[in-house]
Amino acid sequence: MSSELARLSIAEAAKLIRKGEVSPTELLNASLAEIARHNDMLRAFISITEESARKAAAAAELMLSAGYDLGPLHGVPLGIKDNVGIQGQRTTAGSKVLADWLPEKDATVIAKLKQAGSVFIGKTNMHEFAWGGTSANPHYGHVRNPWDTSKFPAGSSGGSGAAVAAGLCFGALGTDTGGSIRLPAAINGVVGLRPTYGRVSNAGIVPLAWSMDTAGPMTRTVEDCALMFNAIAGPDPTDPATSPYAVDDYVARLTSGVRGLRIGVVPRYFFSHLQADVKQAVEQALHTFESLGAQLVEVDIKHIDGNISAQLTIESAEPSTYHQKALRERPGDYGDDVRALLEVGEMLLATHYLQAQRYRSVLRAEFVEAFKQVDVFVCPTLPFTATALGATKVVIENGVEEDMLSAIMQFTGVPSLTGLPSLNVPCGFDSGGLPVGMQIIGAPFSESKLFSVGHAFQTATTFHTRRPSLCSQ
Amino acid sequence: MSSELARLSIAEAAKLIRKGEVSPTELLNASLAEIARHNDMLRAFISITEESARKAAAAAELMLSAGYDLGPLHGVPLGIKDNVGIQGQRTTAGSKVLADWLPEKDATVIAKLKQAGSVFIGKTNMHEFAWGGTSANPHYGHVRNPWDTSKFPAGSSGGSGAAVAAGLCFGALGTDTGGSIRLPAAINGVVGLRPTYGRVSNAGIVPLAWSMDTAGPMTRTVEDCALMFNAIAGPDPTDPATSPYAVDDYVARLTSGVRGLRIGVVPRYFFSHLQADVKQAVEQALHTFESLGAQLVEVDIKHIDGNISAQLTIESAEPSTYHQKALRERPGDYGDDVRALLEVGEMLLATHYLQAQRYRSVLRAEFVEAFKQVDVFVCPTLPFTATALGATKVVIENGVEEDMLSAIMQFTGVPSLTGLPSLNVPCGFDSGGLPVGMQIIGAPFSESKLFSVGHAFQTATTFHTRRPSLCSQ
Repeated sequence: MSSELARLSIAEAAKLIRKGEVSPTELLNASLAEIARHNDMLRAFISITEESARKAAAAAELMLSAGYDLGPLHGVPLGIKDNVGIQGQRTTAGSKVLADWLPEKDATVIAKLKQAGSVFIGKTNMHEFAWGGTSANPHYGHVRNPWDTSKFPAGSSGGSGAAVAAGLCFGALGTDTGGSIRLPAAINGVVGLRPTYGRVSNAGIVPLAWSMDTAGPMTRTVEDCALMFNAIAGPDPTDPATSPYAVDDYVARLTSGVRGLRIGVVPRYFFSHLQADVKQAVEQALHTFESLGAQLVEVDIKHIDGNISAQLTIESAEPSTYHQKALRERPGDYGDDVRALLEVGEMLLATHYLQAQRYRSVLRAEFVEAFKQVDVFVCPTLPFTATALGATKVVIENGVEEDMLSAIMQFTGVPSLTGLPSLNVPCGFDSGGLPVGMQIIGAPFSESKLFSVGHAFQTATTFHTRRPSLCSQ
Repeated sequence: MSSELARLSIAEAAKLIRKGEVSPTELLNASLAEIARHNDMLRAFISITEESARKAAAAAELMLSAGYDLGPLHGVPLGIKDNVGIQGQRTTAGSKVLADWLPEKDATVIAKLKQAGSVFIGKTNMHEFAWGGTSANPHYGHVRNPWDTSKFPAGSSGGSGAAVAAGLCFGALGTDTGGSIRLPAAINGVVGLRPTYGRVSNAGIVPLAWSMDTAGPMTRTVEDCALMFNAIAGPDPTDPATSPYAVDDYVARLTSGVRGLRIGVVPRYFFSHLQADVKQAVEQALHTFESLGAQLVEVDIKHIDGNISAQLTIESAEPSTYHQKALRERPGDYGDDVRALLEVGEMLLATHYLQAQRYRSVLRAEFVEAFKQVDVFVCPTLPFTATALGATKVVIENGVEEDMLSAIMQFTGVPSLTGLPSLNVPCGFDSGGLPVGMQIIGAPFSESKLFSVGHAFQTATTFHTRRPSLCSQ
C-alpha cells in the first residue's frame, strides 16, 4: 500500500489530499519508506532531510485545514538536485569542495516551490559539479539505474531521475546544461523538461556553464511536469539572464491535442547514428503522432553538425573559469575525471570559445527560421539505452566503441546550444526492457505546446505507466 | 557667410529652415564648401557622397513644401562613420579589407536617420576596424585635429569628431566600444554620447567587440545630441542585443536643470592620475554644477581598478575571433598595428576572456548599487589633451611615458564595460588652447538625465561656442 501511494502521480496525490483520503504526512511516510527500502542500493539521495520534511508536511496539513490551499504541489514530497541551494541545508553539488556548504539563502526555484507548499525530502545525487561523462561520483557513491542496477542512470541529474523512476519522491528538480535533465529522464524512463534558456531562474544554483545552464522538473507524467513548471517558471530580478516576459499557465492547454500539428524531423542527423531499438521506438512514436492527426515534415538543418564540438567547448571553458581559483587551491578535492576536464578547459583559447558562441547564433537562427514550417521537432534523446555502470565507452553501431561524453550529448546538445526548450517523454523500451526517451523540441517559450504534445502521447500510450520492478520488490 | 551657416547647431538650422530663411540645399552647400576648404588637410572624410546628398537635400525641400516635416534633422547634412553601412555606398570600416564593400542594406541607424529626413554628406575616417591606439590610418590617411593640425584627433571616430568640430557637417554618427565616441569628442571639443548598451541597434555596423559595441551621435551641442539620439534609439528585432524597453523623448526634459542633483565623484580613481590642466577644468565644471544647485557625493568603487585589463582582454578576444578567417586569408590587407593587435588577441585563453566578462558583472553591480546614492557620476573623459599626431606614448605626470592604448582608455573603459551611458561634454581648454572634456555617466537607460545635466552646463558656460580657428581661416 505504501509503495502504491509512493508511485502516484502528483496530480493524483493532489486530488486524494483534497478529498481528505491521504495527508501530506502519509505521502511523506510513503516516500520515506521507499527511500529506506531502496536508497542504500540506488544512492539516489545524498542527504535525506527527514526532520524538516516532517515539519513541512505537518505545516502543509495545518495550512490546508485553515483553508490555505497553495495548489497541486502543496504537501507533495519532492527531491532536489544537490546543486540547488536550500537555506541552511547542506548543498554539495556532488563535490567534496562544497561538502560543508550551508547556503544562506534559498535558490529562487526553492523559494517558489516553498510558496507552492511542496515538501523537500532530500538532496539528490549527481555528477560532481554536474560535469563529467559517466555517473561515477567519487565522493557520494554511484547512482544505480532502478530498471537494472548494474546499469548507469545517466546524468548529471541521475539521482533525480532514479529517485522519481523508483518512487522515492513524487517529482524532482534537475538542472540541464548539455542534457543533464533529459538524459537521466530518458535513461530512467521519466519525464524531464529543459526549459527555454532564461525561463527559470538560476539564482542560488551552483553553475556549470552559465550560458547554457537551466533548471527544470523531472516527474513521472507530463501533466506533473507542467504542474511543477507552473511553480518555478518566471522572471527573477536576481538572475539577469531570466526573460522579462510573463509566463503562461502551463496546464491550461494540456489537453489541446496534436491534430494538425506539424512535427519536424531531421533524418540526416537525428535518425542516422543510433541503436536500432532506440530508432524503432522513436519512429513508432512518430507513427502514434500521425495516427493522432499530426503531420511529419522533413527539415534539414544545414549547420547542425558543429553542435557537439561547440557544446563541449563552451561546457569546458565556462566551468574552467568558474573553478579556476578553487582548482588551484584544493585540486585534491576534485574527482579525477572532473579535474581532468577542468584542466583541459583551461587550455582552450578565447577564439575557440567565441567561435563556438558565434556558431550558436547561427544554429539558433536556423532553428527559429525552421519553426515557421513546423510546430515542434521530435527526435531521440540519446542514441543508446543504459550502458554498464561506470562505462566510459559505448557501442552505438557495428561494434565500434565511442567516447561516452560526446556520444551521449549528440542529440541533447542542440537545444542546449540554441536555448530552445526540450521535453523528454518516455516512448518505449529496448529488447532488454530498458527505457527509451524522445525529445520534443519547441520554439523559444513554447513550453505549453511541448506539454500538450507530450500529454497527447501519454494519453494514447502506456509507456509511462510501467515502473521498474525494483519498486515491487 | 557660408562658414557661419555651416557652424550653426542643428537646432538653429532646423529653425531657419522652418522660417524659410535657409534651405536644405543651402545647408548642404555650406557644408560642402567647408569640406572643400579643409578636408584635404583634415582627412575627416574617406568618401564624399555629393551626388546622393544633393538628391536627398532636394527631396527634403520638396517634402517640406508638401507639408511633410520629418522633424529637426529633416534636410540637415550629417557625416556617417565609415563602419556604418549605407546601402550601395562604399563602407570601408577604415580598412583595405573592405575597400570595395557596397552594403546591400542600410544599417538600422541609417534607416532611422533616413526616416528623420537627414542628408548624408559622406563617410568619416576612422581607425582601421575601429581598433588601434593611435589615429594613424595606413589606408585612408591620418585625421588631423582642427584645433592644432599637428595633433591627433583621437579615435576611433576621429573623422566624425574633427568634421563636427571644424564645421564640415552639422552632426555625425560615431561608434564607441572602449571610448571611440567620447575620446574624439573630448579631444576635438564636441559633444558625444555613448548610449546604454542595447539602446541603439548595431545591425549593419561592422563590429569591433560585440559585447561592448555601441553607436551614438557626435554634435556641437548637447541639445543637438538629444535631437539625433531621438532619431536613432530604440528596439530592433534584427539586433537581439537591443533592449525591448520603449524609448524616452530625449528632448522633453532637456531644461530640467541640476538643482538637487547628486553628482558622484570617485577621487581615488578618476582624479588621481591625469594632467593638471585636465584636472583643473573638470574640477571647475564640478564647481559650476554646485553653483547651479547640485551636490557632490564622494563614492568609492571598490572593484574599479581591474577595468583596463578587462577591457583590453575583451576588446582583443572578440575582434580576433571576428577577423580570424580574413586575417588568415589576406593578412597583408591589414595595417601593421591592427594586425599585431589581432594576433595578440588570438593568444588569449578562454579563461582570460571569461574572467574579464565575470569582472564586468561585478563592476556593473557595484555601479548599479552606487546609483542609489547618486544621480550621475562626473569625471574626465581622458587624462590628457591632444598629443602629437602618430604618438604611441603619452606623458601624463612627472615626465613618465606611458603606452597610449591603455592610458587613453583609463576613464572611458568604465562605461564600456558596465554598459552604462556616458556623455562627453566639453568643459574647458588646456594652457595651449586644446579642448578638455568630461564624462557624465548615468544609470542604465538614463540618457534623458545625461542630456539635461549636459544642457544645464552648456546653458551656464560658453566652452561649446568656441570653435577651432581653422574654421575662420
